[in-house]
Amino acid sequence: MPVCELISVGTELLLGEILNTNARFLSLELAAMGISVLRQSTVGDNPKRLALAIEEALSRSDLVIISGGLGPTPDDITKEVACRVLACDLVLSEEISEDLKAFFSARGLDMPKTNEKQALVPKGAKVFKNPKGTAPGLAYEKDGKCLIMLPGPPREMEPMFLESVKPFLSKYSDQIILSHTLRTFGIGESAMAELAGELLNGTNPTVAPYAKDGEALLRVTARAESLEKAEALCKPVLDSLQKKLAPYVYGIDVENLQSQLVLLLEQSALKLATAESCTAGYLSKKITEVPGASKVFECGIVAYSSDIKQSLLAVSADTIKTHGLVSPEVAISMAKGARHLAAADLALGVTGVAGPGPDTQGNPAGLAYIALVAENDIIVEKVQTARSNDRDYNRRIISSRALNIARLYLLELKAKVRE
Amino acid sequence: MPVCELISVGTELLLGEILNTNARFLSLELAAMGISVLRQSTVGDNPKRLALAIEEALSRSDLVIISGGLGPTPDDITKEVACRVLACDLVLSEEISEDLKAFFSARGLDMPKTNEKQALVPKGAKVFKNPKGTAPGLAYEKDGKCLIMLPGPPREMEPMFLESVKPFLSKYSDQIILSHTLRTFGIGESAMAELAGELLNGTNPTVAPYAKDGEALLRVTARAESLEKAEALCKPVLDSLQKKLAPYVYGIDVENLQSQLVLLLEQSALKLATAESCTAGYLSKKITEVPGASKVFECGIVAYSSDIKQSLLAVSADTIKTHGLVSPEVAISMAKGARHLAAADLALGVTGVAGPGPDTQGNPAGLAYIALVAENDIIVEKVQTARSNDRDYNRRIISSRALNIARLYLLELKAKVRE
Repeated sequence: MPVCELISVGTELLLGEILNTNARFLSLELAAMGISVLRQSTVGDNPKRLALAIEEALSRSDLVIISGGLGPTPDDITKEVACRVLACDLVLSEEISEDLKAFFSARGLDMPKTNEKQALVPKGAKVFKNPKGTAPGLAYEKDGKCLIMLPGPPREMEPMFLESVKPFLSKYSDQIILSHTLRTFGIGESAMAELAGELLNGTNPTVAPYAKDGEALLRVTARAESLEKAEALCKPVLDSLQKKLAPYVYGIDVENLQSQLVLLLEQSALKLATAESCTAGYLSKKITEVPGASKVFECGIVAYSSDIKQSLLAVSADTIKTHGLVSPEVAISMAKGARHLAAADLALGVTGVAGPGPDTQGNPAGLAYIALVAENDIIVEKVQTARSNDRDYNRRIISSRALNIARLYLLELKAKVRE
Repeated sequence: MPVCELISVGTELLLGEILNTNARFLSLELAAMGISVLRQSTVGDNPKRLALAIEEALSRSDLVIISGGLGPTPDDITKEVACRVLACDLVLSEEISEDLKAFFSARGLDMPKTNEKQALVPKGAKVFKNPKGTAPGLAYEKDGKCLIMLPGPPREMEPMFLESVKPFLSKYSDQIILSHTLRTFGIGESAMAELAGELLNGTNPTVAPYAKDGEALLRVTARAESLEKAEALCKPVLDSLQKKLAPYVYGIDVENLQSQLVLLLEQSALKLATAESCTAGYLSKKITEVPGASKVFECGIVAYSSDIKQSLLAVSADTIKTHGLVSPEVAISMAKGARHLAAADLALGVTGVAGPGPDTQGNPAGLAYIALVAENDIIVEKVQTARSNDRDYNRRIISSRALNIARLYLLELKAKVRE
């Protein structure tokens, strides 16, 4: 398999003025073609340091892709430096020269003298046209190595890569790459990795653990000559992982908890309502992130104060007095209230302490009770988050737990119907 | 001036699965401290290639900062590789070990065996605590060079850098660095930059525009021998920017729109309620991100369906029929309903099309009406977002606009009271 390195050129990247989206775009595209990126480097508009970076990259890799430094100004030096490293001449391309003149005359302008240098190309290089700007792309092959130079602005580089460079590179790609993502909830990255055990050491497919938005996930990636063969490599590993992680897995190649919940609600033709205290809209916001959530979710109540819990959700003053605002009883009563108000089939009630500090009753931050109320069922769970002084974390985790409680309930319901 | 290199570690970066925001964040912060970044490199979780990258970087630079590869799983190898390169021993830190145990026991969990290795540190290294996760940061100094290792997840790395690493690095910077951030709403980054004009070309203070979460902001950074002198350099530039950007600036060194709104509500001793359709909890979630929001916000209604708008918020069937669900009239009626239900002083009503597609009435995605209803005032505004097929963007922008409408109203009220 061919190996590749990327070099991004531009002092603005080293100053942190712009985010390097080119490295990501190219890495993603190359991975999909079965070309491994071994290293990404960023250097400034400095001839000595750029030359060193090109030499190093060519010594390690078959393919080096540089983006940036092809513009018309004096600090654009990529072509000149690359030619020095490769010991080749820069020659005028009549074709590019004509293109450049046409580019400016189409805009009713004479071509500035500084742009003339953009028509210079390494002798024998392949030229990639730039319909979005003035810097053409270039590929120069020598001694079995290939150096590709692309313009820096993403709006010029990306279409050029897709239209011209990708077809040119197809000769370097001989494999299909296939990835599946297994998503879990309720388990940390390290505990998940421990359960996955030796499967993490595989080389084809590889199994890589990630943590994202408070969830742990596993990416299974296989390489093969065909999609079928890649699928056949993934299948036993995915099956085995799903068995090992059974209580935590909520889907393969699915988007997130809320999309799974909305799907289950649609399939069951049930409607959900919410009554939130500490999460105060977070849960409702998550559910309605899913396009089409309106079919299964019509109403959410944010009842932050004790008065609103009583007046709107009919939580009795007595329940609050006896059990406290942060209690299983209030969570259940809130859910009942929302279910009634919304005329929904199911309702979630959430009461707790968002933090960063404890509440006035001395309940610690990150403590919450989540109730699910259905026609014939009541479930209530206690949650105590780990990083309890982090308000956003508490609200996010408590909301996710609520989504998961409803998801598991609907799954069980489905299983019962099948029985 | 000391020179620095950054190394990002993670195969997921080389696969293009995530964007390297760490390199940008660190470059920006280091530039503001007067530390030059010469190169950014990204390598995968591969011991040989990581070792080479560390050796190369240390041979060229005084300071090398690595992010990533400090996690608990077997593919996290940064510490082990760095110690091999530096010829130093990894030893158990009792303090980190205790912190880790406390982290897990707070969750009611035993520490997984894999996490034990996170308590190993290079002998003699300075430790930076990680309040957001399990991987501590490390600094190891030898022969006049310094190698710093930080966790990869930005939500752990960024606060660790600001709280612990920046003060540690101040010895590499011989000046005081002072930054002020001017926050705006309702103007794009490039339009803001145009208004700021020549002030962007200053060198001390520097003025740098950023876009973050749909807002444009300006960072003004001065260097001087003392805080007083740095303040004196910033002051005239901040004054001048504030004048040029007057209609858009909502604060200097303030957190966000919602914190400003909650502050104004507290100062005015007024309570706010919300009634949301297309934003469906996003607005309420934003307001309640602010600790202490419960004092000024007691109730939010998510009324997604037409039925709930009628039954709960008393929007009349006639209003809906005559004007449509997405109309100024429905927004006002929703706000009135929420204000009444919550017995609040002010209420915001939001109705619109979240997208990604148009609604069944043919209203385009990203269109919304936002109403503010107070005792003697009604304000209603129409919004049409720019990237209208992006559901999350639409909901975020519409929520922010609603926050800003309430903020401006309260500011005007305050001004009237003073008159």
